[in-house]
Amino acid sequence: MNTKFLTIALAMMLVCFTGFAQTTQPAVIEDFKPSVLNQPFQQYPQVNSQGYARFRIYAPNADSVRVSLGLAGQGGTKLTKADSGYFTGTTAGPLDEGFHYYHINVDGGTFNDPGTGNFYGSQRWESGIEIPAKDQDFYALKDVPHGHMQQVLFPSKSTNTSRVAFVYTPPGYENGKSKYPVLYLQHGWGENETTWGLQGRANLIMDNMIAEGRIKPFIVVMTYGMTNTGARPGFGPRTPTGNLAPGSARPDSINRRAPAGGGMAGMIANNGFQTVLLDELIPYIDAHFRTIAKRDGRAMAGLSMGGAETKVITLAKPEVFGYWGLLSGGNYTPTDLEGKQKPKFIFISYGSKETGGANGLPKVESDLKAAGFNVATYVSPGTAHEFQSWRRSLYQMAPLLFK
Amino acid sequence: MNTKFLTIALAMMLVCFTGFAQTTQPAVIEDFKPSVLNQPFQQYPQVNSQGYARFRIYAPNADSVRVSLGLAGQGGTKLTKADSGYFTGTTAGPLDEGFHYYHINVDGGTFNDPGTGNFYGSQRWESGIEIPAKDQDFYALKDVPHGHMQQVLFPSKSTNTSRVAFVYTPPGYENGKSKYPVLYLQHGWGENETTWGLQGRANLIMDNMIAEGRIKPFIVVMTYGMTNTGARPGFGPRTPTGNLAPGSARPDSINRRAPAGGGMAGMIANNGFQTVLLDELIPYIDAHFRTIAKRDGRAMAGLSMGGAETKVITLAKPEVFGYWGLLSGGNYTPTDLEGKQKPKFIFISYGSKETGGANGLPKVESDLKAAGFNVATYVSPGTAHEFQSWRRSLYQMAPLLFK
Repeated sequence: MNTKFLTIALAMMLVCFTGFAQTTQPAVIEDFKPSVLNQPFQQYPQVNSQGYARFRIYAPNADSVRVSLGLAGQGGTKLTKADSGYFTGTTAGPLDEGFHYYHINVDGGTFNDPGTGNFYGSQRWESGIEIPAKDQDFYALKDVPHGHMQQVLFPSKSTNTSRVAFVYTPPGYENGKSKYPVLYLQHGWGENETTWGLQGRANLIMDNMIAEGRIKPFIVVMTYGMTNTGARPGFGPRTPTGNLAPGSARPDSINRRAPAGGGMAGMIANNGFQTVLLDELIPYIDAHFRTIAKRDGRAMAGLSMGGAETKVITLAKPEVFGYWGLLSGGNYTPTDLEGKQKPKFIFISYGSKETGGANGLPKVESDLKAAGFNVATYVSPGTAHEFQSWRRSLYQMAPLLFK
Repeated sequence: MNTKFLTIALAMMLVCFTGFAQTTQPAVIEDFKPSVLNQPFQQYPQVNSQGYARFRIYAPNADSVRVSLGLAGQGGTKLTKADSGYFTGTTAGPLDEGFHYYHINVDGGTFNDPGTGNFYGSQRWESGIEIPAKDQDFYALKDVPHGHMQQVLFPSKSTNTSRVAFVYTPPGYENGKSKYPVLYLQHGWGENETTWGLQGRANLIMDNMIAEGRIKPFIVVMTYGMTNTGARPGFGPRTPTGNLAPGSARPDSINRRAPAGGGMAGMIANNGFQTVLLDELIPYIDAHFRTIAKRDGRAMAGLSMGGAETKVITLAKPEVFGYWGLLSGGNYTPTDLEGKQKPKFIFISYGSKETGGANGLPKVESDLKAAGFNVATYVSPGTAHEFQSWRRSLYQMAPLLFK
């Protein structure tokens, strides 16, 4: 046998018998830079061009510091202590493009990485890290006209407080007289009204799409989609909500976590959010902003639980919204829609790594089309049930609304 | 000697010789409630009706947890570990009314208390706790019409990025046509554009003053007052600023802390903020909001370093603002003002515990009045160089502006 054949045969044997494929992972490139979500002056955490993340935490008398990010099934990334008192470590592999929540564990207690800003998810203000993406231009801060992100407080009788919403008004809105369509855009479980702005960068995505003429401008309304907590503190200019009125007892409900049992459907069915949205938020928005206050000027979409809420509410009240979007939040079927007022347009998306949803999507789309519905679907390449899927989905969905 | 006399004598001797007075501090009343600034579902930290704060941190394998709040000179409050793995403790004495920044130290590392929201001060996102105040009604969330807090991104050539500002528009602004005066309101050192809203509750204070007819409505603009960091990340819908444009190098300046030497005056003199405010922010506000765009419709005020900036800028450019306010941020003297265009009104305030400033204030006021200036001063009772002084100062100053 000639040398070349032997070499190939040997290489193949190594692959089979030693997991050689693992040991030929490309070397980690030492071009780490601070994550763009770090607090001012904070050098760590860092990310490199391949998507590896590197952490550095000062806790000189601690025994153990672990980061919740890293290879699945390995309990995150355990950091190594140096004599300097700094714990450092790098993820064992690259992370997916885009935004990731995380926290750290210091001697058994959960804390945030003091290097990063804070992002509300999993019912707490978490740390966050941003992995650069090849397509990150569409959510960059660019030198284009910018819309305004308005925090509004709207009265809610049903939850006995004022509730917070963020309203994106397009560039030029404040200087004009015309009316705009409105997208009501909901967050996922454990998140809140700041999420689409902070993690999702919805306002920057809108600014950029408008600047390049990709979309007809519209208003975006982002509110808190849960009512299980009653009056829930916002952090503002996400200012405190009703439970902060002096002298008022803190509602019991504030201390109850979202119920673990009953599942998502049960939680949504019992959720008073439909009342908040339809009876309280929409009237407030229509009274305080120049909106096209009818079905054809109104869209609703949401990610994950926000998608599930969108599905429940649009099927219960199909006359309210003309355009419906589910982002990693379930599907519509012709059976769901039978006998109901038809939406003008349906959008459904998943990350490619959400294989159940993503793999089933072609059939979901063809079934809906066969039944006469106007539908578009999208699968975000290389991302999972995370924000890069949803930033991209907003970018794909927006040009198709209000047509 | 009769028994009564002996008893009194004995008591007096105990006071003198055993510090009995200290042991007669009122007992700590066990009516602790979660601080209103806690994250949802978080029971700790707690405060009681006397202003004591109680902390509880889970770190089962840690040796030491300390809280930065407590009696001065005692290095904060050291918490005690229980078998459950929780560290608990109560401050040795009551804290002043109002908002307090803090952080915790776990085995030598600085972290935030996972129980609270985050508040930007001392150049980092800190934990925060709210001690109820007798006069807290004026900053409560009430069932009154609410203004909107708008995050705007304005172009800044001088710092080569888009910068963030929060703009409070009064209730009804969005439905009207009239023009409004504008107060430019600055934060202190180590704080940022979110501070007056989050810690200061400026929007709620404005809402309430307007609802009770205490003030003529005006717009409030709150921006980031430092330029030493070049493009500085904001956390949004305080969305990222210029340094997050993909592919752009992170400006070196982002990694430089505010210079320690040179003092406040040096830092302000070298600060490009005057250019940002006068040449970039004011034109943006006048172009995008219905403002009375002239001296008599413009006020500037600030707390601490923001007051120092106000003083420097108003004295350098007295024609820009008609109303000037220094909140724990220095004084004006007739000498400062000699030969310059006279302001319509000057406001100067301190917390009572800022004894230097507070004790000197009557003379500052009488000197200015004797020199023909329209001036009002205010001392906030029982507070120090902290936010309760500044919330109250805003409440005192606002009715006197734009008259």
